Amino acid sequence: MLYSHLFGKTVKKAPADATAASHKLLYQAGFIRESTAGRYFYLPLGQRVQMKIMNIIREEMDRANAQEMLTPVLHPLSLWKENNRHRSAGYELMTIKDRRDFQFALGGTAEEMFVDVVRKFRPSYKDFPFNLYQFSIKFRDELRARGGLLRVREFIMKDAYSFHIDANDFQKEYEKMKKTYTRIFDRLGLATVIVESDNGYIGGEYCHEFVVDAEIGESKYLTTADGSYAAHEDVAVFKKEPKNNEEKMKPLQKIPAKRGTTMEDGVKFHQLPLWQQIKDVLFVDEKDRFILALIRGDYEVNEVKLKHLTGALDLRHATDEEIRNKVKSEPGFLSPVGIKDRVQSEIILVGDQSLRTVVNAYGGANQLHQDFLNINIDRDYKPDLEGDIALAKNGYLSTTEKQLIAKRGIEVGNIFQLGYHYSKKMHDAFFVDRDGKTKPFYMGCYGIGVGRTLAAIVEKYHDGHGILWPRAIAPFQLHFIALNIDDPEIQRSSDYLYSYFMNHGLEILYDDRPGVSPGEKFGDADLIGLPYRLIVSKKTAGKIEYKERAAKTSQLKTPEEILKSIIR
Amino acid sequence: MLYSHLFGKTVKKAPADATAASHKLLYQAGFIRESTAGRYFYLPLGQRVQMKIMNIIREEMDRANAQEMLTPVLHPLSLWKENNRHRSAGYELMTIKDRRDFQFALGGTAEEMFVDVVRKFRPSYKDFPFNLYQFSIKFRDELRARGGLLRVREFIMKDAYSFHIDANDFQKEYEKMKKTYTRIFDRLGLATVIVESDNGYIGGEYCHEFVVDAEIGESKYLTTADGSYAAHEDVAVFKKEPKNNEEKMKPLQKIPAKRGTTMEDGVKFHQLPLWQQIKDVLFVDEKDRFILALIRGDYEVNEVKLKHLTGALDLRHATDEEIRNKVKSEPGFLSPVGIKDRVQSEIILVGDQSLRTVVNAYGGANQLHQDFLNINIDRDYKPDLEGDIALAKNGYLSTTEKQLIAKRGIEVGNIFQLGYHYSKKMHDAFFVDRDGKTKPFYMGCYGIGVGRTLAAIVEKYHDGHGILWPRAIAPFQLHFIALNIDDPEIQRSSDYLYSYFMNHGLEILYDDRPGVSPGEKFGDADLIGLPYRLIVSKKTAGKIEYKERAAKTSQLKTPEEILKSIIR
Repeated sequence: MLYSHLFGKTVKKAPADATAASHKLLYQAGFIRESTAGRYFYLPLGQRVQMKIMNIIREEMDRANAQEMLTPVLHPLSLWKENNRHRSAGYELMTIKDRRDFQFALGGTAEEMFVDVVRKFRPSYKDFPFNLYQFSIKFRDELRARGGLLRVREFIMKDAYSFHIDANDFQKEYEKMKKTYTRIFDRLGLATVIVESDNGYIGGEYCHEFVVDAEIGESKYLTTADGSYAAHEDVAVFKKEPKNNEEKMKPLQKIPAKRGTTMEDGVKFHQLPLWQQIKDVLFVDEKDRFILALIRGDYEVNEVKLKHLTGALDLRHATDEEIRNKVKSEPGFLSPVGIKDRVQSEIILVGDQSLRTVVNAYGGANQLHQDFLNINIDRDYKPDLEGDIALAKNGYLSTTEKQLIAKRGIEVGNIFQLGYHYSKKMHDAFFVDRDGKTKPFYMGCYGIGVGRTLAAIVEKYHDGHGILWPRAIAPFQLHFIALNIDDPEIQRSSDYLYSYFMNHGLEILYDDRPGVSPGEKFGDADLIGLPYRLIVSKKTAGKIEYKERAAKTSQLKTPEEILKSIIR
Repeated sequence: MLYSHLFGKTVKKAPADATAASHKLLYQAGFIRESTAGRYFYLPLGQRVQMKIMNIIREEMDRANAQEMLTPVLHPLSLWKENNRHRSAGYELMTIKDRRDFQFALGGTAEEMFVDVVRKFRPSYKDFPFNLYQFSIKFRDELRARGGLLRVREFIMKDAYSFHIDANDFQKEYEKMKKTYTRIFDRLGLATVIVESDNGYIGGEYCHEFVVDAEIGESKYLTTADGSYAAHEDVAVFKKEPKNNEEKMKPLQKIPAKRGTTMEDGVKFHQLPLWQQIKDVLFVDEKDRFILALIRGDYEVNEVKLKHLTGALDLRHATDEEIRNKVKSEPGFLSPVGIKDRVQSEIILVGDQSLRTVVNAYGGANQLHQDFLNINIDRDYKPDLEGDIALAKNGYLSTTEKQLIAKRGIEVGNIFQLGYHYSKKMHDAFFVDRDGKTKPFYMGCYGIGVGRTLAAIVEKYHDGHGILWPRAIAPFQLHFIALNIDDPEIQRSSDYLYSYFMNHGLEILYDDRPGVSPGEKFGDADLIGLPYRLIVSKKTAGKIEYKERAAKTSQLKTPEEILKSIIR
């Protein structure tokens, strides 16, 4: 490719709002441009990388016997309704009507579509298992797009869906996909951590994220130094150590407490430890139910866990007005004790297990400047639901008593157990078993965001001057620079060398621009970041100056020697 | 690929509404399934073919120095508005709002998007020319989907857009793309006719369709036996031979005419030739203007030509009521003579050139049972617009006096001159020329519908038993059938041969199903239509029965001999 003909040349400045290195560099080096917020043009350089990533994913999926196909991106909304997912997907789902008023969802993921095409064949047990995948445009009406390709509203996803006669058979595929993903990301130069995660609106019982460690990432997870545990903040568990369990219960006592409304105000006023205080957080869900989350004072509530325990789809904090007028309590003085008698509408008390590590707790008394002392679970209040709603944090102990380390990373892929989540909700989602009976099939699904993977690679492979593409996905292997190209002799030999390397099957970007300074050409080469830089000039006298992108020094080599170093 | 594991097996029956051979066969053979009307799943076999077609297109576009990139499929509607195309595209365009009420068009073609990304770079003359292409999902809210993949509402299109400093430079690219397209379709096994066509809502001044002859096709065109002329019915021109031009004009005469309302009724009543009658067709356009199309009685009005001449976007026939109440005339007795004095609202008289081949014409007199004789253009009426609005038909003479032959075909690709159509309407769509001045760039665009091309191939390559895939795009090359596979010896040798051919780089579909009759396996092989069929059974005794799909007889060959015949 002649650089003079390439569409999408380098520019000096990144967009003012770009903070992520990948966003800045991909923009400046001419790989991407924004159309509208979160929707990107892939320029020729960017599209070359995207296709190389796709090909590596394709090769590994094929090697794992998955079968590529393609579904429409406009999904009949009726399919999403079979499953009620048009609700759980919430605002992220875009819908549209055609001129006949037929409703479609713009696909965010395609579970329903794959169930639909599979059930058209009324499969038998003999047809199982199989794993179907596609590369297709996905739509997410994200509240905020950010970080260039890191969080977008439209992107190519490799999504795969596997179908099985039972959980046992699925487990084998799940492990195979774990290995396949690890191999894919290895080939792409990305070390990934496999992190337990939350299924969200995809559904199912468990899933894993493939995360590339990076401060810019949005995936917060907790891991141990030995890597034996890794889980997303949404689902991470930890050991809740007993505090004063041995103490005897004292009688409940209500006392005046002219204090502020924070937890710290409580600690100061009573001169008692934070952990002995009860933290009361009042939420309202999408059905306007009140949910009072109760947890030991030194812990925080994890809303994702709270949603799972309560079945709520959406939670928001109650307002001061709601606390006063509807719950008849007082902000900063909420208490589970007696609250059910005050409230007009429904309220659900949800207790974290940590409440059982404390005896004689203290906290508000549902009235301004009134506190309870010696609150005890079961005796003074009884949660409607009890479980783990605590947020894991850096420094906590894992359940195997290793220290948890909080990290951030970029989620580049994920694999989900779906089980019967779809096949039991959607009609005719069954197969005919050996015994002639119809049974729902068991499913898993597996996604990789291609653009985000591309961005993660740049986050990992760059320096102060530009990108350092791993060879397997570099848009070209060679950046060939002709200096003094106005000299007909140089022009002739450069053109010859360009053909020479091309004819040996190398992908080569040839900076053939006349009248551009060496400094500018070197700067562009560093910014674009191809793995090998070749320079021909009057000084190189028949040889070629050869430098690897990351190297500090260059060498003079013959074309044959360069071929030898490059072709492996 | 093991047939037993393949998702999407053959079925006996085609959908009841399928008429096109490609629709039936692609369905029965397990290449496609319908999601909703006009939106298709590509099953693994279908997707393999689709990707092979895409790769051939990609190779040839790259060879022509076009550069692949990718644009979002949700286009900001504001871009379409810069150009007023959200109107001209009409109902076919689907639009959607996101949660911030930002409006998008679902891309039908992407001219605006490419102009938008190019103008972001504020290019100079040195950057030109370039041709950018993509493979991306396109949306057309067609009134009627039909013929399986022949007319759909969602499909992958290869669309390309070229940018030039002027018309001269564009012309070279246009010719290059003509050659590139011819080469692409040749490689796909499709003979195409290059047909002049109408630009429609794409805009620009001229364009060409690549048409595969087929009765099932929707493109009607006219050509000469020697192929020197080929034009879509919408734009085809023909020679309008003079009739009685030499005659002297006689005085206009109004006479009672108790006749019916058809052209034939006029002929019978007056005992004069059809060509001497004036045909008056009254239309109403989208601005509620009346348009009276006037043409020689033996010709028909071509609405596409009429739209071009009048600038109307949409035309419908006027109702009898409108003719009576608004135009104050009479159905079947319309006449241009004096009509402007009767009508309250605007009426535009549009005359075909053929009116000048006749003297002393006859026709209605704007009153029931009153006709004019000896109507003469310029003397008795004057068209507001005059030009070619005649529909070309089989048997007419071309302008070079060769007989026109009417044909039908499938439009698989098209190339458009866009000129300044976009760059003069959209802001900042310019380049900086050598003289430092900004000038609008000159454009062309080039499309290929991948799915329709796939269907056209099946229309051309099938017989009574199934598809006959050209090798270049067959989903696999070999259909390998093991009979008596329950015999462990056969199983072992079949498995070995499967690996043998795979290891030699051949794509092979291995029908490994136990308990399926030979007849069924042969039937499936014919239906799926891979180019080479290999059979191993007890009878073949160490050799393999080899047959090309189209051949009637088979031969016994060794694996090595088969490799030799197949690997070229």
